[in-house]
Amino acid sequence: MDLRLVVRQLAILLGLLSASVVVVALGIAAAWPGPAEVPALWALGATAVVGLAVAGALWLLGRGAPREVGRREALLLVGASWLIGAGLAALPFWLWAQWSGSLGHPFAGYAHCYFEAMSGLTTTGATVLGDVDGLPRALLLWRALTHWLGGLGIVVLFVAVLPGLGVGGKKLFQIESTGPAAQGVRPRIRETARVLWTIYCGMTVLLVLLLLALGVSVFEAVCYTFATVSTGGFGTHGASVGHFDSVAVQGVVAAFMVLGGVNFGLYYLLFRGQYRAVRRDPELRLYLGLLALGTLVATASLYGGAITTTAGRAIEAAGVWEALRYGAFQIFAIHTTTGFATADFDAWPAPGKAAVVLALFVGGSAGSTSGGIKVLRVLIAGKVILAEIERVFRPYVVLPVRLGGTTIEPELRTGTLVYLLLTIGLFALGTAAILLIEPGPTFLTAASASASTLNNIGPGFGAVGPVENYGGFSAGSQLVMSLLMALGRLEIYAVFVLFLPGFWRSE
Amino acid sequence: MDLRLVVRQLAILLGLLSASVVVVALGIAAAWPGPAEVPALWALGATAVVGLAVAGALWLLGRGAPREVGRREALLLVGASWLIGAGLAALPFWLWAQWSGSLGHPFAGYAHCYFEAMSGLTTTGATVLGDVDGLPRALLLWRALTHWLGGLGIVVLFVAVLPGLGVGGKKLFQIESTGPAAQGVRPRIRETARVLWTIYCGMTVLLVLLLLALGVSVFEAVCYTFATVSTGGFGTHGASVGHFDSVAVQGVVAAFMVLGGVNFGLYYLLFRGQYRAVRRDPELRLYLGLLALGTLVATASLYGGAITTTAGRAIEAAGVWEALRYGAFQIFAIHTTTGFATADFDAWPAPGKAAVVLALFVGGSAGSTSGGIKVLRVLIAGKVILAEIERVFRPYVVLPVRLGGTTIEPELRTGTLVYLLLTIGLFALGTAAILLIEPGPTFLTAASASASTLNNIGPGFGAVGPVENYGGFSAGSQLVMSLLMALGRLEIYAVFVLFLPGFWRSE
Repeated sequence: MDLRLVVRQLAILLGLLSASVVVVALGIAAAWPGPAEVPALWALGATAVVGLAVAGALWLLGRGAPREVGRREALLLVGASWLIGAGLAALPFWLWAQWSGSLGHPFAGYAHCYFEAMSGLTTTGATVLGDVDGLPRALLLWRALTHWLGGLGIVVLFVAVLPGLGVGGKKLFQIESTGPAAQGVRPRIRETARVLWTIYCGMTVLLVLLLLALGVSVFEAVCYTFATVSTGGFGTHGASVGHFDSVAVQGVVAAFMVLGGVNFGLYYLLFRGQYRAVRRDPELRLYLGLLALGTLVATASLYGGAITTTAGRAIEAAGVWEALRYGAFQIFAIHTTTGFATADFDAWPAPGKAAVVLALFVGGSAGSTSGGIKVLRVLIAGKVILAEIERVFRPYVVLPVRLGGTTIEPELRTGTLVYLLLTIGLFALGTAAILLIEPGPTFLTAASASASTLNNIGPGFGAVGPVENYGGFSAGSQLVMSLLMALGRLEIYAVFVLFLPGFWRSE
Repeated sequence: MDLRLVVRQLAILLGLLSASVVVVALGIAAAWPGPAEVPALWALGATAVVGLAVAGALWLLGRGAPREVGRREALLLVGASWLIGAGLAALPFWLWAQWSGSLGHPFAGYAHCYFEAMSGLTTTGATVLGDVDGLPRALLLWRALTHWLGGLGIVVLFVAVLPGLGVGGKKLFQIESTGPAAQGVRPRIRETARVLWTIYCGMTVLLVLLLLALGVSVFEAVCYTFATVSTGGFGTHGASVGHFDSVAVQGVVAAFMVLGGVNFGLYYLLFRGQYRAVRRDPELRLYLGLLALGTLVATASLYGGAITTTAGRAIEAAGVWEALRYGAFQIFAIHTTTGFATADFDAWPAPGKAAVVLALFVGGSAGSTSGGIKVLRVLIAGKVILAEIERVFRPYVVLPVRLGGTTIEPELRTGTLVYLLLTIGLFALGTAAILLIEPGPTFLTAASASASTLNNIGPGFGAVGPVENYGGFSAGSQLVMSLLMALGRLEIYAVFVLFLPGFWRSE
C-alpha cells in the first residue's frame, strides 16, 4: 500500500472542506452580520486556517505519489476521509463554544462536536443540542452544509471535479455510493459523478425556490433544503419541520424527502426518456409500496387518538386528515432516513411505532442519498429467503432467483445476506457498547440510539425520541455512535476493513 | 399430498403420548400415593382416555394409506405432531385445575397449559407457574417427562421403535434433528435413531444414579435428570437448581447440561474409538471455547460484587470461587439452552448480562438436545462473513470457505445465512407481537421473552427473569410464544412451511 497517495488525496479533501467553511463564513458575514455571529465567524476562519495548514502539510508529505489508486488505497482513503473529515468539520463548533464563553454548552466537549459533525456529514441528523434555535446562523448554516456535502458523498464530488484519477476514481465511487449496484448509471465514472451532482444541484435549487415561494425566509429555505435533499435531518429549530405549521411547507418537504430516497440513476434514465425502465424498476415499486403501507398503518393507528406536534400543539382526537398528515410525514421522514419530525412518534400507539421501526431498518433506495439497509437489499434478501424456504419442500427444483428480468448471481446473494447480518450484528454491538459505557439508559434508549445512528436516521425512541436529543450521552458513547454513523454511511465494509489486520499486511 | 398417511402417523403419536401419561399415573400411584395426588391422577387418566379415543378415530380415518411418506407429508407430520401433541400434553394440567377447585391457578386457562406443555416438549423450560413447589407430584413428573420425550424428538423415538417407515423415516429424522447436518452419524436411519436413544437413555440412568448417590430424593433425581439431559429446564422448585445448596449436585447437573449440548453423533464416534475425529471436531472446540469465554466474563463481572441465589441467599461480596460457581453454572445453563438457575442473572452487572445474551442466541451444538442457532451455524456464518469482508479488498482471490478439512458448499452457506436471518426476523416479530398484544411489558421483557422462547431457553430478563415466570402474559401472547417454541425446536422450516400457500398446492 502506498500511503503517500492516500495522504495526498486527503490533503485535497481537507482543502475542499476548508474552502466550504470559508464560503459559509463569507455568506453569513455578507447577508446576516451581527454581534452574535462574531465568535462563530472567528471559529470558522480559524478552522479554515487549520484545515489549509494541515492540507498543505499532507500535500508535501505525499510528494512523489503514483497516480494510480489501488483497491486498498481507495478503501483506506474513503474510510480515512470520513473519520478525519468529521474531525475538521467539528472544529467550528468546538472553537465557538470556547470563544463565546459558552462552557456549559454541549459543544464545549470535542466528542460532542465530533458527533454533531459526523451526524452532519453522514446525513444522520442526530443532534447533541437541546437548544438548536439559540445557535448563531453561521453554525446553523455550516451544520446544514455538512449534510449537503455528505449527501452524495464528498469523494464523489471529488471524482467529479478532479481530473486524472483514472481507474482509482471508479473504485472510490463504488465504495462511497450507497447500495449493492449503481443500477442504471452510465459506466463512465466521471461522467456519472457529474450527472449525479447536476441532478442533486437541480433538486436543491428547485426546493429553495419552492420554499421561498411559500414564504419561508431565505436562511431557513437554504438550511432546510440542504437537510432535505441530502435526507439529513438537521433543522434550525428544536421543533424541526413542525416549526412550520403549514401544510404546504410540510408537504413540499415531504415530497422532496421521498425524491431524495430514490435511486438517482433513475432520474438519469428519466432524462433520457426511458420511462418504461423507470416505471418497471422493482426497487422503486417496493419503495413506494412500503411508503404507502407504512402511511396506512400509521394513519390507522393515529386516527381518533391524541397527537402532539413537535411545536407543542396537542390534538386531542385526530381526524382522518390530521392522522394522515402527521402519519405520512413521519413515515416518509424515517423511511428516507431524513429524520425530520412534525409529531412526537415516541408517544404513538404500538402499531404506529412498529411501522416506524420497520421503516427505520429498511431505509431508502440504493444509489440514493438515504441510509438504512436499502430497499434493494431487502428485496433481494426477501427473494433469497423465500427461495430457500421453498427448497425445503421442493429440493429437486432449482429455480434461479430473479429480479426485474435478470438472475441474481450467487455472489450478490451471499453478499446481501452477509450485509444484513453485519448490520444486525453492528446494531447489537452498538447497543451493548452504549449499555456498557453509560450508567443510566434503558434498553429501549440504547437500542434505538444504536439503530438510529447506524441507519443514519436521527431520532429514535425513549431518551433519544424526536423531541429529545443525544446531548446526554458521555464522550465514549458519542464516539461509538460516531463510528456507527460512519459505518452506516459507507455501508460497513469501507470502515470495517480498516480494523482487519489482513488489510494492512502487505501482499 | 396424502393426508390419510399423516393422520395415521398422528394416531400412533397420540397413542404413544397417552401411554406415557398412563406410565406417569401408575408410577405416582404406586410410589407416592396421597390425597393431594387424587385429582391429578384423575386428570392423567382422563387425558389417556381422550388421547386413545382421538388416536383410534384418526387411525380409522387413515385407513388405506400408502406406506411411503413423501417430503411434504413428512414436513406436515412433524409440524402437526408438535402442535397437536402439545394440545394433548396440556390436558392433564387443565383438567387438574378444573377438578381440584384451583380456579385462580394459572392452569385454569387452557392457553397457559398449552404454553407449559409446549415449553416441556420443546425443552424450553419456561413456566407459567409462580408456585412450582405446590404442584402435585403427578403433574411435576409429567412436566419433566415431556422434556425427556421432546429432547431427542418424539418422532425420532417413533422412527426407532416402529418398523417399515422406509425412506419416510429418514425424512422425518432430518426434519426433527437439530442443526444443519447430522455429522458423524451412520447413514442407516433406524440404526442411527436407536443409537441416539441408547446414548440418551444411558446418560439418563447415569445421572439419576449420580444424583441419588449425592443424597437427592428419588423423585427429584428423576425429574431433574429428565430436565437436564434433555437441556429442558423445568424444576420441581421455584428456586430451580438453586434449591440444592450443594456444590456437588450443582456441579453434576452443570456437567450433564454441557454433555447434553454436545452433538450426539460425537458420542457414537467415541464408542467406535475415533478419538481423533472427536478431538478435532471444530464445532466441539468452539462450543467448549465459548463456554470457557462466557464463564470468564461472567466470573470477572461477578467478582467482588453481590450475588443473590435463586434460593434467596444473598452474597455481599463474591470471592473468586463463588463468582466462578454461580457464573459458570449460569453460562452453562443458558448456552446449552437448559435454563436452570442458581443465581438471579437479571441482577448481574452489564458485562455478565452481555455474556448471557450472547450464549442465549448461540445455543448448543447441532445434533444435540439443545436449542438456539447452534454453534455449527455460528461457525459457518462467521467464516462466510469473514470471507466476504476479505473479498472487499481482495476481489480477485477466490478462496473456498473450509470447515474441518471440507469445503462448505454454496448451498449450505446460503442456507445458514438465511437461517440466521429467519431467527432474527422471528425474534423481532415475536417481540413486536407481544408488545402489540400486551398493554404492560417493557421492551426488555418482550424482547427477552421472544428470544428465550424462540431459542428454547426458559428464563429471560425483566418480568421473565430467572426468579419470575411467564404467568403474567395474556392468552394471545402465550399462543404466540408457544408457536415460537415450536419454530425454535423444529428449526423454523418445518413449522414455517405450513403457513406457505405453495406448500398446500398440489403439484
